[in-house]
Amino acid sequence: MQAMRGLFITVEGGEGVGKSTNITCIRDYLQARGVALVVTREPGGTPLGEDIRTVLLQARRETVAPMAELLLLFAARAQHLRDVIVPALEAGKWVICDRFTDASYAYQSGGRGLDSGAVRTLENLVQGELRPDYTLLLDAPAVTGLERARGRGELDRFEQEELVFFERVRNTYLQLATESSGRYHLIDASQPLASVQQQLHTICEQLHACWAPRQQQLR
Amino acid sequence: MQAMRGLFITVEGGEGVGKSTNITCIRDYLQARGVALVVTREPGGTPLGEDIRTVLLQARRETVAPMAELLLLFAARAQHLRDVIVPALEAGKWVICDRFTDASYAYQSGGRGLDSGAVRTLENLVQGELRPDYTLLLDAPAVTGLERARGRGELDRFEQEELVFFERVRNTYLQLATESSGRYHLIDASQPLASVQQQLHTICEQLHACWAPRQQQLR
Repeated sequence: MQAMRGLFITVEGGEGVGKSTNITCIRDYLQARGVALVVTREPGGTPLGEDIRTVLLQARRETVAPMAELLLLFAARAQHLRDVIVPALEAGKWVICDRFTDASYAYQSGGRGLDSGAVRTLENLVQGELRPDYTLLLDAPAVTGLERARGRGELDRFEQEELVFFERVRNTYLQLATESSGRYHLIDASQPLASVQQQLHTICEQLHACWAPRQQQLR
Repeated sequence: MQAMRGLFITVEGGEGVGKSTNITCIRDYLQARGVALVVTREPGGTPLGEDIRTVLLQARRETVAPMAELLLLFAARAQHLRDVIVPALEAGKWVICDRFTDASYAYQSGGRGLDSGAVRTLENLVQGELRPDYTLLLDAPAVTGLERARGRGELDRFEQEELVFFERVRNTYLQLATESSGRYHLIDASQPLASVQQQLHTICEQLHACWAPRQQQLR
């Protein structure tokens, strides 16, 4: 089997940290340098995954069991990996994914209190050895992000959570960034947008500079 | 914690073996003897579970990754256990469940070819030590059941499978019945309905006769 040649980059962060805007910035920067890429998101990214996203995000009378929530996320992820992420990486494309398994650690383990061992079990079961190459963590105080997110209109099932939930999510992300410092790029998303995007350009430039010569060798 | 006092009975079998009709027969028989019971089904049994059922059963253009299918089933199961099955058993009720985890072994491992170790990992993660007390397996040749199921109208995503898929499902069920013979009651569902139901009455009578005195002791 040919080694994967694309780069798998995930963009993580809590509510309202500007993931969508900044992913557009990353996409534009890389496309301008001729990088073939796929921009996608979790939960979602496939027709089945988008149906699962609807089930997950809709406000409900019943509370959703944290384990059910975690399994739904990994169901969408299994389809996403098989149909989108792995084929793109194998074709040498970069995959820019709006949230991935680190979000399951942050939200379902950190936020909901599930044992992180449950997330790890599913990560190994569904992904085998596949992990992101780089993770950009857009970090801002939970209260700042939540105010931004709540300004956008009707709230989904997650956005209806209390501030303390999002503080646990943020702390888990920061802990992951410390534990996996080689893979993580921590970005202060409470800075002005121009500063954030300047930092993203620098990171993308470095990644591209490392990746391009490796590709030359593989050809 | 008080010991569970209800009985957890699952009814398993391929397409068109008469699960619904026979579950009604079991329910009527037990209710006439004053047994408090809950009749439920998988995937489903809760509002979230029924939404997941819709996602699972609808015909799709894309093929569903077997791992995604398995995780969706266990997501519905986690909610079902927390909100319906465990509370009913703890309240001393009998739970009669139309399909449970044995169906994941039969359909997703036997039928779809997933490693049975994946089903076992999820079974342990989601159920802990909880297993059915008794399982009634309604068995009929795959071709017989499939003809019955296909006579009912529009086909769901599973019913659209080929005969060979349902033969693998049946063989896995028969293997489970052999391996877990203490828990399994194998019923030949190709007999006339009256014979099947006579057999079900006998089984229910035996279960009730064993259970009732135990309950007297617990009071």
